[in-house]
Amino acid sequence: MTTYRITLQYIGTRYAGWQIQKDRQTVQGCLVDALRQMTGKTVSVVGAGRTDSGVHAMRQSAHFRLPNTISTAKLKPSLNGILPWDIRVLRVEHVDSNFHAQRNALKKRYEYRIYNGRVLSPFLRGYVHHVTAPLDLEAMQKSAQYLRGSRDFSSFAATSTTVRSRTRTVSLSRILHRGHHIRYQVEADGFLHHMVRNLVGTLLEIGLHRMNSSDLAGILKSKDRKTAGPTAPPHGLFLMRVYYTVDSKKSDK
Amino acid sequence: MTTYRITLQYIGTRYAGWQIQKDRQTVQGCLVDALRQMTGKTVSVVGAGRTDSGVHAMRQSAHFRLPNTISTAKLKPSLNGILPWDIRVLRVEHVDSNFHAQRNALKKRYEYRIYNGRVLSPFLRGYVHHVTAPLDLEAMQKSAQYLRGSRDFSSFAATSTTVRSRTRTVSLSRILHRGHHIRYQVEADGFLHHMVRNLVGTLLEIGLHRMNSSDLAGILKSKDRKTAGPTAPPHGLFLMRVYYTVDSKKSDK
Repeated sequence: MTTYRITLQYIGTRYAGWQIQKDRQTVQGCLVDALRQMTGKTVSVVGAGRTDSGVHAMRQSAHFRLPNTISTAKLKPSLNGILPWDIRVLRVEHVDSNFHAQRNALKKRYEYRIYNGRVLSPFLRGYVHHVTAPLDLEAMQKSAQYLRGSRDFSSFAATSTTVRSRTRTVSLSRILHRGHHIRYQVEADGFLHHMVRNLVGTLLEIGLHRMNSSDLAGILKSKDRKTAGPTAPPHGLFLMRVYYTVDSKKSDK
Repeated sequence: MTTYRITLQYIGTRYAGWQIQKDRQTVQGCLVDALRQMTGKTVSVVGAGRTDSGVHAMRQSAHFRLPNTISTAKLKPSLNGILPWDIRVLRVEHVDSNFHAQRNALKKRYEYRIYNGRVLSPFLRGYVHHVTAPLDLEAMQKSAQYLRGSRDFSSFAATSTTVRSRTRTVSLSRILHRGHHIRYQVEADGFLHHMVRNLVGTLLEIGLHRMNSSDLAGILKSKDRKTAGPTAPPHGLFLMRVYYTVDSKKSDK
């Protein structure tokens, strides 16, 4: 058997998220189907993380194992030939047999895109959250920077979240803007369910002066989802990159 | 009556082009419908140029006349509230009563977008022409630059073209590229039907070494459509801008 890591790009609009579900179109499901068509077998595909319904990915990572009889060179074009147009395999790498796309991920980067002008370009529709009310970017930036570091993010996790530890280390949290285009970039060693969208929902409340930057300390301390802002819509969110150590890539390939 | 110039952006994918047609969805048709809904009357809308079926516009211009009873301030949001999502009015200007969007246009700029890498990003699908074979950009650039100046472009006009003069002055004709992204930019005082797509089809033949840069002189001289390359597909083409003299805009508004 050979272990592969693939790098994927997808438009989340038509999918009920990453994770395979019965009777729903999912990205993982499409990959399993494509590999079944290629190999005649059910191949298990493990993703670095589960993106929600409607969330996009610029670079998602996943791994799977295939019999050595499958030609490595043809894997990328074969998969792209079978997959729907809105899911593309950008890269296929031969990795160590014990590589695990989720457990070996050091950190991930997400980006949330907002358009803060009056008229939205049709070319951006479905790929940015359109906010027409004026936003206080300085207050949002201050709040974004405050979120860096190791903290218990319970207040920003979906109430259904069942993981034991809700402490995550945020290594990057910043607002970038150019004209009416605003991006929130965040990197962490892991993300709780809905965490980025709940952070953005709260940053937007601050930008709209419905909450204050100084409220963040209390929100984090409360560990109560109800104290934070609403969940921002999924279509502004992009999984940008999953980071691994360099040596997870096989040197002989 | 008040004369307005509007600046429009649209995704051409769902439309049978700019020009109104019976039983076909067109951009001009949508504008006439929206204005009829606002005013209860049939308002004639004149565009700077007719984009073909499937061709996009970053900035198209048009003019129309309305009774003075219509609020100028509300015109843009009202139109955008009625128009389909893939047609947006970016700007509304009060212009001189004798302004004419087509006759007063000094020149237009088109851009044709090509992606010359192996795997096309799903986010670009429908907005670039995907060419996987390697392209000789130097030969294409040389040919693009050769096309500047005043010439008879009959060889690049759709055979159905019936206009009297087929001489056009091309003031800009160049290839830009960044990685696998290639753009052909062209400006002229006017364009014959299919002219940009036929120029691009010919530049691609040159880029693929099926034709030579030095063939262009003969192609132009022949005035025969059959000597030039094929018509490139519409979805790579964008009308970028229509140029007018500064004083077409009313100074009092």
